[in-house]
Amino acid sequence: MAKPVSPRGLARGRVLDCAVALFAECGVHGTSLKMIAQRLGVSKAAVYYQFSSKEEIATEVLRPILEDVTRVIKIAEALPDWEARRAVACSGLVEMAIRHRQLAAVFVGDPAMPLIAPMELRAVTGELRKLLEGPEPDAQSRIAVAVFFAGMGNAVADPLLADIDDDELHGVLLDLSNRIVRPTTDGD
Amino acid sequence: MAKPVSPRGLARGRVLDCAVALFAECGVHGTSLKMIAQRLGVSKAAVYYQFSSKEEIATEVLRPILEDVTRVIKIAEALPDWEARRAVACSGLVEMAIRHRQLAAVFVGDPAMPLIAPMELRAVTGELRKLLEGPEPDAQSRIAVAVFFAGMGNAVADPLLADIDDDELHGVLLDLSNRIVRPTTDGD
Repeated sequence: MAKPVSPRGLARGRVLDCAVALFAECGVHGTSLKMIAQRLGVSKAAVYYQFSSKEEIATEVLRPILEDVTRVIKIAEALPDWEARRAVACSGLVEMAIRHRQLAAVFVGDPAMPLIAPMELRAVTGELRKLLEGPEPDAQSRIAVAVFFAGMGNAVADPLLADIDDDELHGVLLDLSNRIVRPTTDGD
Repeated sequence: MAKPVSPRGLARGRVLDCAVALFAECGVHGTSLKMIAQRLGVSKAAVYYQFSSKEEIATEVLRPILEDVTRVIKIAEALPDWEARRAVACSGLVEMAIRHRQLAAVFVGDPAMPLIAPMELRAVTGELRKLLEGPEPDAQSRIAVAVFFAGMGNAVADPLLADIDDDELHGVLLDLSNRIVRPTTDGD
């Protein structure tokens, strides 16, 4: 955080971009700091000057997602009633998933994900789940939220859907989120 | 297939049960034939007499799922119109996911899954997708089916939902499947 540029002028952003490209090609487990340095044409020490580990790089790559989820929660929690909160959480989450679609394609399904996802990210995901499940979650709402989370996360990362543009995917997922996360009683 | 019992009387079923328990504890990558033999209290050779590799064991464990999906497809394809086929495919898939809930908890998210899932399983999953997407799939139906597949697969495997019994999970997932996999036009 205190080292924006290395002694050789290697920008943190370049390291992060290169790391994401390698994560996509080789998985997180299959990527090393040495590989990142080689592709950037710098020494391993230059990368180490910026980041102490691959995990730190991955956490930094995921930081924008953490910040976005935190923002969505803040906006939702400021609203007076539960239904409005739920709607904002749904809409905010879909918007976020689309915006980070490329990162999702890299990280969803990566076996290293449970190890690298920062604690804060898991914590805010839990808060988001509470917002979507409502004040007194029954089995129906808990299942619906689980289906929504997994379904949306996988859809934005799905290579079979890569030809569908962001706007269309956004519209369909928003529609689906409203079908999935709502009381059963009003639909039967 | 031609060797139901080893020279020492080691039943194939015992090897499979033991393998599933170890897959659940250590992941597929973390399990070896040696570990399976040790836990069963037999020699590695006795396990090798039944199965030539860990992958063969995993494929055999997944075989009932393959047979169930094939059965669902056969039932659905015998129906005259697309809507009836889609409904049967949805319902059959949910029933199957619940029945294999324990296996799902073991295999969903296991990084070895793409390597061990037999070709046939991927082929029938593709056929099932076609049944659900309908004869002329647009973006909406392709996204809906992707959300349904991932959402349902993860929900039955989700440890956070483990306290919900099979009957209740079945009912809610069936309701959700009908909300998710259907034309948008009738819901807007």
